[in-house]
Amino acid sequence: MNIILLSGGSGKRLWPLSNDIRSKQFIKIFKTEDGYESMVQRVYRQICSVDKNAVVTVATSKAQISALHNQLGDKIGISAEPCRRDTFPAIVLATSYLHDVQGVSEDEVVIVCPVDPFVTEDYFKALYHLGKQAEKGEANLVLMGIEPTYPSEKYGYIIPASNEEVSDVITFQEKPDVKTAEGYLSRGALWNGGVFAYKISYVLDQAHKFIDFRDYQDLYQTYDTLEKISFDYAVVENEKKIQVMRFGGQWKDLGTWNTLTEAMEGEIIGKGIQNEDCQGVHIINELGIPVLAMGLHDVVISASPEGILVSDKEQSSFIKPFVDSLDQQIMFAEKSWGSYLVLDVEQGSLTIKIKLNPGHYMNYHSHKNRNEVWVVISGEGHTYVDGMRQSIRVGDVITMEAGCRHTVFAKTELQLIEVQLGEEISVHDKQKYELEW
Amino acid sequence: MNIILLSGGSGKRLWPLSNDIRSKQFIKIFKTEDGYESMVQRVYRQICSVDKNAVVTVATSKAQISALHNQLGDKIGISAEPCRRDTFPAIVLATSYLHDVQGVSEDEVVIVCPVDPFVTEDYFKALYHLGKQAEKGEANLVLMGIEPTYPSEKYGYIIPASNEEVSDVITFQEKPDVKTAEGYLSRGALWNGGVFAYKISYVLDQAHKFIDFRDYQDLYQTYDTLEKISFDYAVVENEKKIQVMRFGGQWKDLGTWNTLTEAMEGEIIGKGIQNEDCQGVHIINELGIPVLAMGLHDVVISASPEGILVSDKEQSSFIKPFVDSLDQQIMFAEKSWGSYLVLDVEQGSLTIKIKLNPGHYMNYHSHKNRNEVWVVISGEGHTYVDGMRQSIRVGDVITMEAGCRHTVFAKTELQLIEVQLGEEISVHDKQKYELEW
Repeated sequence: MNIILLSGGSGKRLWPLSNDIRSKQFIKIFKTEDGYESMVQRVYRQICSVDKNAVVTVATSKAQISALHNQLGDKIGISAEPCRRDTFPAIVLATSYLHDVQGVSEDEVVIVCPVDPFVTEDYFKALYHLGKQAEKGEANLVLMGIEPTYPSEKYGYIIPASNEEVSDVITFQEKPDVKTAEGYLSRGALWNGGVFAYKISYVLDQAHKFIDFRDYQDLYQTYDTLEKISFDYAVVENEKKIQVMRFGGQWKDLGTWNTLTEAMEGEIIGKGIQNEDCQGVHIINELGIPVLAMGLHDVVISASPEGILVSDKEQSSFIKPFVDSLDQQIMFAEKSWGSYLVLDVEQGSLTIKIKLNPGHYMNYHSHKNRNEVWVVISGEGHTYVDGMRQSIRVGDVITMEAGCRHTVFAKTELQLIEVQLGEEISVHDKQKYELEW
Repeated sequence: MNIILLSGGSGKRLWPLSNDIRSKQFIKIFKTEDGYESMVQRVYRQICSVDKNAVVTVATSKAQISALHNQLGDKIGISAEPCRRDTFPAIVLATSYLHDVQGVSEDEVVIVCPVDPFVTEDYFKALYHLGKQAEKGEANLVLMGIEPTYPSEKYGYIIPASNEEVSDVITFQEKPDVKTAEGYLSRGALWNGGVFAYKISYVLDQAHKFIDFRDYQDLYQTYDTLEKISFDYAVVENEKKIQVMRFGGQWKDLGTWNTLTEAMEGEIIGKGIQNEDCQGVHIINELGIPVLAMGLHDVVISASPEGILVSDKEQSSFIKPFVDSLDQQIMFAEKSWGSYLVLDVEQGSLTIKIKLNPGHYMNYHSHKNRNEVWVVISGEGHTYVDGMRQSIRVGDVITMEAGCRHTVFAKTELQLIEVQLGEEISVHDKQKYELEW
């Protein structure tokens, strides 16, 4: 199977666990045997268990590259948009990445699906059959139609010609109101989950109608000149040869705390206590300090270094405008080399904890407007400071004046306390260099 | 007025703002013109505004000395029990402190009152009159009787002989059930708020009946040998000449989040947002990150470096056993020289932020089992490290091996990041020294 996972969005609806740089698919919330995994880890694991030879490419934005490498390692392909366009350019870019970079033949089928539905393995088996159906060539596009469980206003609908497993598509409908949705259901309509399969040659042909490009590299270089246009508008609505394959298994959209907590196995992640009078209460706590809940009903409590949410579950779907109104700097982030966490913010200083994974290192860089001090609190490795290599271990202190070029390599897992000092501390104050060694 | 303020207890009922070393009277929760003040600051300010010459002595435990100096400065007297005994030894110790250390004549009257009722200035005017009544010598003890507003089970009751402003006392009653309390109220009973006035000579005479001691110093030295006995049991129950003076002004016991939030002026202290569907919600947030509350009713949310409480207000009075079950180290503390806050806890390291007030310094000390690194993030001062004096300013780094003697003096307000490194980090690993300079 060739799969393109669409990994988008900055999920503010799951604040404080998601933020401008951590989308909801990276929150580790699903119980595994030895801890928790994120949506993207869960989906990738499920794909591999259905087809261990699956070629998985994540279509995403630049901002997610570090988090993807951090959570999935280096086995996955990443097709990162150099800037945000709509789904048509993104799917074309990922398709040509598969063809030109990964060397997948243009006769092969690709299955596109969003990274964030909460599903079981039968969903990925269905994807496999979706691909097989596309291989037959009876249609140019084969969509997955999800059998509705209620007349939802949240999804688009596909009206199939018949109620057979595979059917031609009569028409598509935008998100309706409940009454209209009830009408669709009586006509046997299916939810459009944004899942579809096609032959690479088909989408590349469609792409060349709209876009003048030679190959992936060329497309990537000129990506900022492309028009913002959705795949539905550019391709689906103009295509006559479309089939839909129905899927009746579990498929949940976990976009809000209300729906996400329904999918949680236990009621508490992290340090938390509930008294016996709590009912329907979920605690998701990424802080090191305990949460105590007393006498609450149908409430979600979520705490991270970004903030603390305490919300009635129904109302949790309305948090976005309130989160938008918060003026909170990014307090934690997963990077390709590890992660960092802001410990203290003062006028003129910022103290963070840096964790580097074994064998990883950060960019060689300098800052114009701040000095920095590193104190090694665990692990071993070495630093390069203005070209000088130095081994480091617990207790070592490294001071770096503004302008000084520096990086650190982790031999084992390495943790540093970094104190930044200066009147204008900004994440944008960073010059990167090639390491001269 | 000579006033002894009884400042006791480790108020776990107001966790996470109170903890083993910060009692509820030190929580800054009452709005002032330029910030917030604590119960103890509020009471001290109110006393001074009624009688600017008042001699105030706080009867407390050793653990509170630093916080009292931090919040009240050096103007107050402190009579600190060297170890915990009951109220009789504590009041005798404070009374002999007033007599022997502060030089108050034994003919003078002392008024004893708990530090934690929420009152207005008329209460302290009533204390003044209570003292005047005791001066008359009609009785050996003059109690304040608070006019009940409801048949409470939480207080002891005083049954007066008449409903005049000053009356003899017929008897005392322990905390009753509601039905019994209703009966007391119909007989004109008053709440016993633990407030009383006496002449110093009276209590010292009573003390010598039970305890063999010469003076304050002698009593302090032998304090650990004293029997635990309450003032009520040792003195009040055996005294025939007792009067009660009634008080009908505001008097509230703010011992739980439910009652405390009733006394708050606004609904939010610290960073917090409520949506329009929140009703009766209070947010008290000492963390630097925001709290967002959505669709909650009659809930208190309190966050500090120790933890996060989210409780139905009624149920907030039952938090103690749950807080007792938490195994959380002390995360912040007010010291006589300033304060500290734990930023990060790892196996083998602890990172804290230290703030020193201008002109203050910590003890000259060393640690057996840890190295330390200081990074100055604001202010100016100087360090002594193994007897060597060094001026410090922002950006300076000081490294201290285990065994090395060190202290820091603040010229201006001074802030340090301190990284502690070692396998056995403990607050008890501390040897103090006289500074040799």
